[in-house]
Amino acid sequence: MLLQQSTWIEIGQFLERSRTVVIPIGSNEQHGPTGLLGTDWMCPEIIAHEAQKNADILIGPTFNIGMAQHHLGFPGTISLRPSTFIAAIGDWTRSLAVHGFEKILFLNGHGGNIATIEAAFSELYAEASFARRPAGFALKLCNWWDLEGVNDLARAQFPTGHGSHATPSEIAITQWAYPDSIKTAQYSPQIAPSGPIREALDFRARHPDGRMGSDPALATPQKGGELVALAANGLVKAVDAFSREAIPA
Amino acid sequence: MLLQQSTWIEIGQFLERSRTVVIPIGSNEQHGPTGLLGTDWMCPEIIAHEAQKNADILIGPTFNIGMAQHHLGFPGTISLRPSTFIAAIGDWTRSLAVHGFEKILFLNGHGGNIATIEAAFSELYAEASFARRPAGFALKLCNWWDLEGVNDLARAQFPTGHGSHATPSEIAITQWAYPDSIKTAQYSPQIAPSGPIREALDFRARHPDGRMGSDPALATPQKGGELVALAANGLVKAVDAFSREAIPA
Amino acid sequence: MLLQQSTWIEIGQFLERSRTVVIPIGSNEQHGPTGLLGTDWMCPEIIAHEAQKNADILIGPTFNIGMAQHHLGFPGTISLRPSTFIAAIGDWTRSLAVHGFEKILFLNGHGGNIATIEAAFSELYAEASFARRPAGFALKLCNWWDLEGVNDLARAQFPTGHGSHATPSEIAITQWAYPDSIKTAQYSPQIAPSGPIREALDFRARHPDGRMGSDPALATPQKGGELVALAANGLVKAVDAFSREAIPA
Amino acid sequence: MLLQQSTWIEIGQFLERSRTVVIPIGSNEQHGPTGLLGTDWMCPEIIAHEAQKNADILIGPTFNIGMAQHHLGFPGTISLRPSTFIAAIGDWTRSLAVHGFEKILFLNGHGGNIATIEAAFSELYAEASFARRPAGFALKLCNWWDLEGVNDLARAQFPTGHGSHATPSEIAITQWAYPDSIKTAQYSPQIAPSGPIREALDFRARHPDGRMGSDPALATPQKGGELVALAANGLVKAVDAFSREAIPA
Amino acid sequence: MLLQQSTWIEIGQFLERSRTVVIPIGSNEQHGPTGLLGTDWMCPEIIAHEAQKNADILIGPTFNIGMAQHHLGFPGTISLRPSTFIAAIGDWTRSLAVHGFEKILFLNGHGGNIATIEAAFSELYAEASFARRPAGFALKLCNWWDLEGVNDLARAQFPTGHGSHATPSEIAITQWAYPDSIKTAQYSPQIAPSGPIREALDFRARHPDGRMGSDPALATPQKGGELVALAANGLVKAVDAFSREAIPA
Amino acid sequence: MLLQQSTWIEIGQFLERSRTVVIPIGSNEQHGPTGLLGTDWMCPEIIAHEAQKNADILIGPTFNIGMAQHHLGFPGTISLRPSTFIAAIGDWTRSLAVHGFEKILFLNGHGGNIATIEAAFSELYAEASFARRPAGFALKLCNWWDLEGVNDLARAQFPTGHGSHATPSEIAITQWAYPDSIKTAQYSPQIAPSGPIREALDFRARHPDGRMGSDPALATPQKGGELVALAANGLVKAVDAFSREAIPA
Repeated sequence: MLLQQSTWIEIGQFLERSRTVVIPIGSNEQHGPTGLLGTDWMCPEIIAHEAQKNADILIGPTFNIGMAQHHLGFPGTISLRPSTFIAAIGDWTRSLAVHGFEKILFLNGHGGNIATIEAAFSELYAEASFARRPAGFALKLCNWWDLEGVNDLARAQFPTGHGSHATPSEIAITQWAYPDSIKTAQYSPQIAPSGPIREALDFRARHPDGRMGSDPALATPQKGGELVALAANGLVKAVDAFSREAIPA
Repeated sequence: MLLQQSTWIEIGQFLERSRTVVIPIGSNEQHGPTGLLGTDWMCPEIIAHEAQKNADILIGPTFNIGMAQHHLGFPGTISLRPSTFIAAIGDWTRSLAVHGFEKILFLNGHGGNIATIEAAFSELYAEASFARRPAGFALKLCNWWDLEGVNDLARAQFPTGHGSHATPSEIAITQWAYPDSIKTAQYSPQIAPSGPIREALDFRARHPDGRMGSDPALATPQKGGELVALAANGLVKAVDAFSREAIPA
Repeated sequence: MLLQQSTWIEIGQFLERSRTVVIPIGSNEQHGPTGLLGTDWMCPEIIAHEAQKNADILIGPTFNIGMAQHHLGFPGTISLRPSTFIAAIGDWTRSLAVHGFEKILFLNGHGGNIATIEAAFSELYAEASFARRPAGFALKLCNWWDLEGVNDLARAQFPTGHGSHATPSEIAITQWAYPDSIKTAQYSPQIAPSGPIREALDFRARHPDGRMGSDPALATPQKGGELVALAANGLVKAVDAFSREAIPA
Repeated sequence: MLLQQSTWIEIGQFLERSRTVVIPIGSNEQHGPTGLLGTDWMCPEIIAHEAQKNADILIGPTFNIGMAQHHLGFPGTISLRPSTFIAAIGDWTRSLAVHGFEKILFLNGHGGNIATIEAAFSELYAEASFARRPAGFALKLCNWWDLEGVNDLARAQFPTGHGSHATPSEIAITQWAYPDSIKTAQYSPQIAPSGPIREALDFRARHPDGRMGSDPALATPQKGGELVALAANGLVKAVDAFSREAIPA
Repeated sequence: MLLQQSTWIEIGQFLERSRTVVIPIGSNEQHGPTGLLGTDWMCPEIIAHEAQKNADILIGPTFNIGMAQHHLGFPGTISLRPSTFIAAIGDWTRSLAVHGFEKILFLNGHGGNIATIEAAFSELYAEASFARRPAGFALKLCNWWDLEGVNDLARAQFPTGHGSHATPSEIAITQWAYPDSIKTAQYSPQIAPSGPIREALDFRARHPDGRMGSDPALATPQKGGELVALAANGLVKAVDAFSREAIPA
Repeated sequence: MLLQQSTWIEIGQFLERSRTVVIPIGSNEQHGPTGLLGTDWMCPEIIAHEAQKNADILIGPTFNIGMAQHHLGFPGTISLRPSTFIAAIGDWTRSLAVHGFEKILFLNGHGGNIATIEAAFSELYAEASFARRPAGFALKLCNWWDLEGVNDLARAQFPTGHGSHATPSEIAITQWAYPDSIKTAQYSPQIAPSGPIREALDFRARHPDGRMGSDPALATPQKGGELVALAANGLVKAVDAFSREAIPA
């Protein structure tokens, strides 16, 4: 069930049978010479939309801009500063809590988001902790590649050249979902270098075409479809486990 | 051309022929008993995506959560506070300006966003004004219903019962784009009351089913399609005029 | 009754017969070659002080600095950024609410303030909406030129050359109140150009003497007096209507 | 010369002969059973307006709301939080600096403002310090009672019962300037108690009628006039000394 | 008793017999050619740690970075902006209040901290004042040199050349506590100049070696030991008096 | 070399031979029934102070309060909210960068700090990225347990009962450094439970005595000494490697 394609009355009815909602969250940033700028928010969106086709889970709108300051040296990247990102995650969460959602699972598509999302969770929990009261909600960060079995499949599909940015697995997923937007390009070296992540100019100097440790030409739509099917299944399980989790009195 | 379905190299090439980008912006909020929660961000997205099919204009990702605090009494609504909204619009704009975009047109789908978007523009311009330097970019807010001819068409389509929230025109657009998500419901009175907009409890007490002055059952997918076609055409013209506008030296 | 010329005991007594207060709000900014820098906060102050002479309404201190970033290219302009303006309106409002004021009418004198004042209202209401509680107060923005009959009179007084900044109507009001500070200057063209409002350097390039679409030499103290009398009367009516307005339970 | 009753052209001309501006700053807060709520912003305004009658000094608009959180238990008090106050002083200062003002003297009328005004100065200077550049302006806080000779006169006028809040000296000044707003009341003890300043409920419990250590009935308009004359003279000297002060290269 | 060298269970037991805690607070900033960068946080820490050896008082961790923007022109200085300082003092205080501490005494070692610490107190109290509730805690700022008898002793020890920054008294205290870190240097003039405090470049131009009005060579470890003994004794008395202070109902 | 026990002149000299500084950073929070509240900031301080005895590295003052909101249910815990923590890390870093430090290594002692410290780094880098300029500094987060060989030693010392909070390794380090503050207590179960980290009440319900997965009674001062020696050596190597790292042009 997609929240945005529902009426408020339907969401009210859903809340009578579940208090859990999934928010796909990612980033809009360069993904090397062939990857789509939207890769990191499209992947969790694709997986979450697929998952709700066969399970009674609720997917909210996609949080499509995250923490990508290091990619700002490449055209098309849009980034929030961490302080803005924390404020926005806060308002999304507080809005959902107003309606009675008690378990909010952020399905994340961007490694660079992890630290700030966790900081945002702490900022939200701290409101309750300073006030000596229960938060009223539990928050969970779940990267799509950490869903059950997904990392194993990706390693099997791409034993070399997977890397950590503009990876063949994420590009395969977008190829499966947007077959009309498959791009090709020449690049070298075949497997890109790795390195620390600092400001945008530093990043571009280290990674001139945007890739980090990856060979995205290994991606195929078929491999993407396999990943989506497995991840969608894993998401349903993760939502179920999170929903069942008891909160201490 | 959709930014998110492009590579950074393609955006770099686009910047050589244009410095203008369109950002669909809206809100995720209750739209009465039959309107979709995503109506206000889907409408500008639908129109903008349609417009780029036949014109060389660039559409960015959709800014899908806006200022909807007064709708928080209805399940599914997600709102940013104005201060968060201003910060987020700021970071989107600064990111685009880093790449050399000089004209940023926000195609808006939610009346409740207007004041805060304009405040955000002033916040951004003020950085330049306090520093005695040019901003380097021009910002434009354009509501889809103010695109050339659109208001006239809506008035002709819905001479009564248009209202100001959960209107038949916006619902018609989502019906055209998402025909599988057309909802029906009984409601009364046929045309909803109007009133001031204050906090969420006040709003819900005044507008028990969420509508303001509207009769959304007048919507049809066909009327939506007519509105989209006209608005898409108007957007191309608006982008063209904005792109041509000279900035004083 | 002027709050600032009252004791706290007198305000306590007033609160027993009314829960409404008027805050004149404006801006301190260039007003063309002959307009006073204080025009936009003086006008609502003049009107509000006049209104309370013959009616039992309460006028608070004047909020004299608003959102005027686009005028910073002209000496004497003082502006708050929107984020600061929102914070300050918030603290004024919260202070008044502490005392039990339930209706706060901001009588505004500057078009450039409108968006940010409305954003500030939403920021305040959002505190209540996120907390699922009533706000405890209602806020109203009222531009002095929108008071009953005022726009019609101004149009009759100045059929051409009224424009939108450094208008003859606002200058006439300050001439009536401060006859020792009437200024004259040569300027051309007789009616100033109009244009978009962006950062300060852009604004000054488009409007070299500061006027927008206006011919302020049309102002006379007598016309100002007529406007003040009508507006003061309109304010009393507006306060009365706002005070009587019921809040839904 | 009053900035608000001048045109931008006149301020531009003033800047050719001086780079100094005076901002009266105070608070709108309870002043005991007979003192006006506006006392603390009216006193510096009265003195500054008087001073500019006989000297070529520039007085800006009055910053009329300060840090008065401890008085919020008394109707009519309006307070900024320190964080808001710092932001607003910052924007006033940055605006004036844009125009080339290099010496900004805040003539203060409220003891409770001092700490936050100094913190605001540090916040502004810190921008320069972190950027390893000159600030471009010097800021001075001057309480009106510290102007040359004023404290001595007040002590001579009120050898007992002066106290620290709702003092006969400040009330005398408002009596001189607003003779139609002189208030009387019974109160006891004749000289109010003193104590620490904490939150509003604590303050009101310690100081039930709002006075701190004072007997405001000692005030007379004539004494007020003497204070204003001396303070106005002292302000002119203070402005002159500040204007002449050299800034190290 | 040192909080940081205790377990949470021991602090819980302490709270059963006292609700008062002392926080040493200072600054890490240049202290002239011979003073240690940590002087201003070491002094209150040394005194507080000494005081708890013979009295049942609780000393928390040292808040070691304060408001030192004007010293940023000298290597090793670390400063918070006032806005950050206010936020951090706020979170320290709110944390301690969560546990039931009702009296928090900040033992301060840096004159430049005073204004911002007081602003921070007002920011905290304002939360309660705007909410019409008791704060639940009382805050006290106490400079170590203002403890009973300390200023008199310092004046007796250093009748000339004490000054206001890099003073022989504070340096003597660090010499007593850190005898292995006693530094010597040539400097002139023997007594440093005084002047206003503005941004860092201005400060360094006025005070090339960092001293203000002082001759730190007068310091000896023995004099430091005398100051520590007296101040530690004074702190115990101050804590006792503060603990006994009644809060109005 | 300890920054706080040096003069500004000595730091200026150090900067001529190195641009690297180490900041011990931790948290003041409950550490189970026997662990000291200061454990998490004492451990990196102890290790860093030990390391500088035999190597020419510079250690700054200890950042002793971090992100510990989940421990606020236990007396003595002091926490910053993530937003405050980010602001404070920002000002520390900007201060050090003013002096020319180009490599800043935060030696961390608290797992709960990691996400927010990384978010703070991104916030700082983003300033440069949005301005299209180099940051001028590189930041590194290094947990003391990740220093070369340390985790291996801890696993060898404590094959069972190490856990993740109030671990025997961190408690051993404080026992070695503060042998007079070794605490004992009865607790059960011998190895504490693990679980998710949410708000303070939730945490205390899951972990009634504060431990997570650990048996701190395994700690001995001797094991602590072994850990310190190894970690101090590892820190010297880490500083050396970081100092040598080239920044791309």
